[in-house]
Amino acid sequence: MHLVGFAALEKRVSAQRQLFILCAQLSLISGYNNQNNHSNRSPTPFLPSLPPSLPPSFPPTAGGDGFCGWPTALYLSEKGHDVIIVDNLSRRNIDNELGCVSLTPISSMETRVAAWKQVSGKTMKFINLDVAKDYQEMVQLFIDEEPDTVVHFAEQRAAPYSQKGAKQKRYTVDNNVSGTNNLLVAVVESGLDIHIVHLGTMGVYGYGTSGGEIPEGYIDVILPGGRPSSILHPAYPGSVYHTTKCLDALLFQFYNKNDGVKVTDLHQGIVWGTNTPQTIKDERLINRFDYDGDYGTVLNRFIMQGALGVPLTVYGTGGQTRGFIHITDTAKCVEIAVSNPPQAGEKVQIFNQIAETLKVGDLAKLVAEKTGVSINFLKNPRLESAENELEVANRKFRGLGLDPILLDSNMGLIDEVRTIASKYSERCVREKILPASFWNKKREAECEVNTLVGNK
Amino acid sequence: MHLVGFAALEKRVSAQRQLFILCAQLSLISGYNNQNNHSNRSPTPFLPSLPPSLPPSFPPTAGGDGFCGWPTALYLSEKGHDVIIVDNLSRRNIDNELGCVSLTPISSMETRVAAWKQVSGKTMKFINLDVAKDYQEMVQLFIDEEPDTVVHFAEQRAAPYSQKGAKQKRYTVDNNVSGTNNLLVAVVESGLDIHIVHLGTMGVYGYGTSGGEIPEGYIDVILPGGRPSSILHPAYPGSVYHTTKCLDALLFQFYNKNDGVKVTDLHQGIVWGTNTPQTIKDERLINRFDYDGDYGTVLNRFIMQGALGVPLTVYGTGGQTRGFIHITDTAKCVEIAVSNPPQAGEKVQIFNQIAETLKVGDLAKLVAEKTGVSINFLKNPRLESAENELEVANRKFRGLGLDPILLDSNMGLIDEVRTIASKYSERCVREKILPASFWNKKREAECEVNTLVGNK
Repeated sequence: MHLVGFAALEKRVSAQRQLFILCAQLSLISGYNNQNNHSNRSPTPFLPSLPPSLPPSFPPTAGGDGFCGWPTALYLSEKGHDVIIVDNLSRRNIDNELGCVSLTPISSMETRVAAWKQVSGKTMKFINLDVAKDYQEMVQLFIDEEPDTVVHFAEQRAAPYSQKGAKQKRYTVDNNVSGTNNLLVAVVESGLDIHIVHLGTMGVYGYGTSGGEIPEGYIDVILPGGRPSSILHPAYPGSVYHTTKCLDALLFQFYNKNDGVKVTDLHQGIVWGTNTPQTIKDERLINRFDYDGDYGTVLNRFIMQGALGVPLTVYGTGGQTRGFIHITDTAKCVEIAVSNPPQAGEKVQIFNQIAETLKVGDLAKLVAEKTGVSINFLKNPRLESAENELEVANRKFRGLGLDPILLDSNMGLIDEVRTIASKYSERCVREKILPASFWNKKREAECEVNTLVGNK
Repeated sequence: MHLVGFAALEKRVSAQRQLFILCAQLSLISGYNNQNNHSNRSPTPFLPSLPPSLPPSFPPTAGGDGFCGWPTALYLSEKGHDVIIVDNLSRRNIDNELGCVSLTPISSMETRVAAWKQVSGKTMKFINLDVAKDYQEMVQLFIDEEPDTVVHFAEQRAAPYSQKGAKQKRYTVDNNVSGTNNLLVAVVESGLDIHIVHLGTMGVYGYGTSGGEIPEGYIDVILPGGRPSSILHPAYPGSVYHTTKCLDALLFQFYNKNDGVKVTDLHQGIVWGTNTPQTIKDERLINRFDYDGDYGTVLNRFIMQGALGVPLTVYGTGGQTRGFIHITDTAKCVEIAVSNPPQAGEKVQIFNQIAETLKVGDLAKLVAEKTGVSINFLKNPRLESAENELEVANRKFRGLGLDPILLDSNMGLIDEVRTIASKYSERCVREKILPASFWNKKREAECEVNTLVGNK
């Protein structure tokens, strides 16, 4: 095993290449960077921000994958990284399960990769592989490709879906935890010095538990014996999905300590938007757009409802404050993380990947004003605080050069999403917009009454 | 689903019975208590402590299972609980994998259960079921049997085994995490008010990190915003196995908060001894005794080595301090926990299940003096602090009546283990005593040199 590791390392140095693997929804996306510059810790230059309004001109095709993974893969490729996408297409399978596909007509992975080659001249490999199950294939891939970085998006990512029922709770834990552990074990076994960049969630912190600004990953405490210590922020996950990200954090901590695995964990806020400067280049590159009660993120769902002229569905009072980030910045943040690995021996590096915090009710009001629809306050299917304040540090990404897209000064991006939503509105199954998963049996019973109530 | 839950609850109340399910190694053991008294929070009366010396008179038979689970099942049965054992016999399969069976010739589960019926007049069911995989069977079992309590031992429990290689790391995480999550989901889906008693480990705290007495599960800290909070003790697991117990803790926390599942988590120290007042009653009831580098617990391993007249193998300096508990007290503690469930709405209840803390080197010295063998200091195959102090609170069990067996005043128990070890010494595969798993590749390389070194 050592021999394989050393041989691989040797080959790698002589070849002077870098490979990034990143996991889209239950899947990996990976690639090389021929520029060999990722070990510099200097701020990375950015593409200019997405222009405020983009021409909506994508004729429908078919298929779909990786709301965050796909645009991130394109951005990494554009920035000069050689990308291999590894994905078992589970997100498409979940579309089948839920009877609700992406609003945007996304292409098959084969078509997407071919289109990107045409548009950019850059090659991306696609490998169909289940990170949570196909362990041997993953190790072999690492040995063959000698990646510098693995970007790990390979997790079931919807909190409502994870609360839907026994099957989904079990799938989310089995898939997410086994996937992360397999990846860590494969990195150790490969003998390669691979940097793992993992997409986590702001939800690991809980919302409004601390009473102050949420720091980036760690807090300073005094342990019972009086010894000061920097510990992982206490885990207050709000769903089975969020819990798996907390479990991931402990796995990262252990393999980092025991095997020296380099890890960057990105605690991301709620993503909004659909296209990026890369996905907009060709209709076959269009990103997926989820509007359903399980996978639709809140602002996108509101915009979609506004475009359809139906009332916005706010859960509870709308007093929940959450962190938000535009999909274009998701890709940028991942690239910054890839380009700034921790030092050898450094503990797990944690960044809060958010642009700003906003109240859900304020977002609804904003979209309602823009579109003229009303707001329907539904009983909350989730078990969460009705109201909370939220202040979050994001100094690390800002220090590395991120100038995030803020909603206030980029209102045109709402129009862009709205245009997409209108364009494909005939693909919408309206009843799928309503909440379809309930946090526990009590909530389900309460919400049953609720769904009989009309627009308020 | 609601209907099933309510129907089951109704049946349960009218039947006035209680069921305990406890998980032996990768398995469940379960049963009823016809006395219907477990909701009283008063201290539970104990069996008298194991007498200092026990007659060793077990002729060899074959097979093996559940070092902690089996004697606990017998003790619960003797105390009047109706016990169902659920086990997939994975521990026996691991014996096959490692080429090293229990030193004591343990009977098949069928023989054990039949023998217990003869000896005690009490019936225990045995069901072969994999908690990590056979989810539907587990839910159906709950609906059919309406348990009050599930005692969850269903995890791969050896730290060295969990570090052995990719296969074992993956198995430990997949099995332990999926098993715990399946159990929690099944409890929620059953609609029954089931109390889960889980066997955790002292190893979740790390050793010597706090500088003071380790409290029982929670510590008081000031969060970044200045808000005081009681949080789970920070997780500092020392192996993949220990990490899974930290992951369990977060799963318990979530399902407790979201679904009101009642959980008691027992952070147990290192278990020593082999027989209990119940297993000693018939040769077919004999408990398993692991002496190998992967599953043998440290004091038992030393006693075994003393009995064989071979040098004791101390890892590192022997300066590691650990918590210890005798197997008889393991069973007692579980019974106390079963009889003292948390109140409805109460957070996860955590007890430290240890009798005392002892230095590994002192244990070696004690056994060396008793047996006249020398001590061989091996390079440590583990990644752990060479020396640590350890002070642990165990006030909760003491407050509920536990008067634990302490080594100093029960030296006869060492003789008892030694007699067992001598009696079955011809079953020992001596080379299996040495460490066979290494925490990482660096340790493995260091220890390779080490194994060539003879007795010091």
